[in-house]
Amino acid sequence: MEDGFLAGARVAVVGLGLMGGSLAAALASRRACGHVVGVARNPRSLEMALGMRIIHSGTTDLAEGVAGADVVVLATPITDILNKVRSLGPLLKPGCILTDVGSTKRAITQTMEDLPPHVEPIGGHPMCGKETSGLSVADEALYRDKTYVLTPLPRTAPRMVATMEGFVRAVGARPLLLDPERHDRLVAAISHLPYALAVALVNAADRMADGDALAWRLASSGFRDTSRVAAGDLAMMTDILATNRDHVLEGLRRAQEQIAALARCLEEGDAEGLEAILRAARDRRLEVYG
Amino acid sequence: MEDGFLAGARVAVVGLGLMGGSLAAALASRRACGHVVGVARNPRSLEMALGMRIIHSGTTDLAEGVAGADVVVLATPITDILNKVRSLGPLLKPGCILTDVGSTKRAITQTMEDLPPHVEPIGGHPMCGKETSGLSVADEALYRDKTYVLTPLPRTAPRMVATMEGFVRAVGARPLLLDPERHDRLVAAISHLPYALAVALVNAADRMADGDALAWRLASSGFRDTSRVAAGDLAMMTDILATNRDHVLEGLRRAQEQIAALARCLEEGDAEGLEAILRAARDRRLEVYG
Repeated sequence: MEDGFLAGARVAVVGLGLMGGSLAAALASRRACGHVVGVARNPRSLEMALGMRIIHSGTTDLAEGVAGADVVVLATPITDILNKVRSLGPLLKPGCILTDVGSTKRAITQTMEDLPPHVEPIGGHPMCGKETSGLSVADEALYRDKTYVLTPLPRTAPRMVATMEGFVRAVGARPLLLDPERHDRLVAAISHLPYALAVALVNAADRMADGDALAWRLASSGFRDTSRVAAGDLAMMTDILATNRDHVLEGLRRAQEQIAALARCLEEGDAEGLEAILRAARDRRLEVYG
Repeated sequence: MEDGFLAGARVAVVGLGLMGGSLAAALASRRACGHVVGVARNPRSLEMALGMRIIHSGTTDLAEGVAGADVVVLATPITDILNKVRSLGPLLKPGCILTDVGSTKRAITQTMEDLPPHVEPIGGHPMCGKETSGLSVADEALYRDKTYVLTPLPRTAPRMVATMEGFVRAVGARPLLLDPERHDRLVAAISHLPYALAVALVNAADRMADGDALAWRLASSGFRDTSRVAAGDLAMMTDILATNRDHVLEGLRRAQEQIAALARCLEEGDAEGLEAILRAARDRRLEVYG
């Protein structure tokens, strides 16, 4: 029944950047639904998306875009998602599934609680991305085999959860149900903390280099890889850090403890203590990735 | 004249792990010298290297291995390099060039100062590697187009510097002359600090995950790349941190300052301050890598 639902469904993707564009591309290339409407502020994005054949139609008008949609996916920065969730309820048809791809979930799902009763909300967060952004780097394979978290609300009917799981599989991803608190805590650890430390690395290395351009000539794949995510989109990352502040702060504190422990071992010439810290990290990293 | 020298030269590579093995492989595949002798503690490494055709002969006996060598490259962990530099002078023929590939240079070059006068020492550090180690991952392309630092001593004759530059080019790398202090400071920033922060990331994330295995299912390329170097060889990394302690400590302090600044902005809701930090890192990262 879900397959039947999706096959004929009208899906509105609001925001045609990397995430929205890639989602539309996956839906289109897999012929996963009946009609994809793109909604974007910039008419050029719509032209480009139509040219890429990743949307069937497009509009800059939100009301027009979501009218009659069976599924609406909000794929704009978190602050914008929150604003839209607060206001677009009346624009949606009864039974419309409203979801998002925002990188934090508590704030968004809490705001979704206040949607009018005819809307079926469920939070979403596909665990994929690039540090480059924009429609031009959209990729129909971005979601393939990736974990795509769904955070149902207390009000979300089980069959709507099942329908969204079907949607996630239809774009090639793997649904994972989580509660928003657990999600936000875990992504602080494995996504937001890496970003913060990459930022710290680049700025600290820059200070140490102190204008010596040779630093960057010596930099090899170690610096390149460890710093990569520091190039992430600023608007997106500031939104993320702000809406996951408490868990990000915990991550930063934990990182400071680790760095302080390393420094103490070095200062005191504690070779055993140093090795224990390094070994723990190496073992865990090898466990996770082999 | 250098080309003639190297073409007929007998080169001893002491230590057949990733770096020594890859160096031998580059010399062999490029037919860069007359004869490559491999010296390793483990006879199986020698068998393997002979089988891979990256050495012409091999021995577990250091004296035998370096006898009559025109160039000796020490490619063992730093602590072992230091021990060998202190003791193998008498084993080398007059005019033998003694070099190394150790990741820090002050300690090694200072120790090289005390070599007998008939030896021609020059420190070296090729800026390449992998976080996996051992002969089985040796790669004749490892040095290709990579920056290979040379740190001449005050006693190193200019023509020996020129000869070593020729050696570096002969294995496909790009020589860069630096003094050891500048080298150690810069590599602390762009190599040792990334390692320390990758270690801090893995351990901090592990603490936050607190046994929740789902953390690693959510981890995507961001965590993978930022943590990659944390899997580095323990013996090698502890040696590196110990012999570059002062600069590594400075790097850790700088990183702590950055993290504290991020935390303060988050705690105080200072959006502008936060954006300034993130923007600085992003801009610098894009400048270095585009």
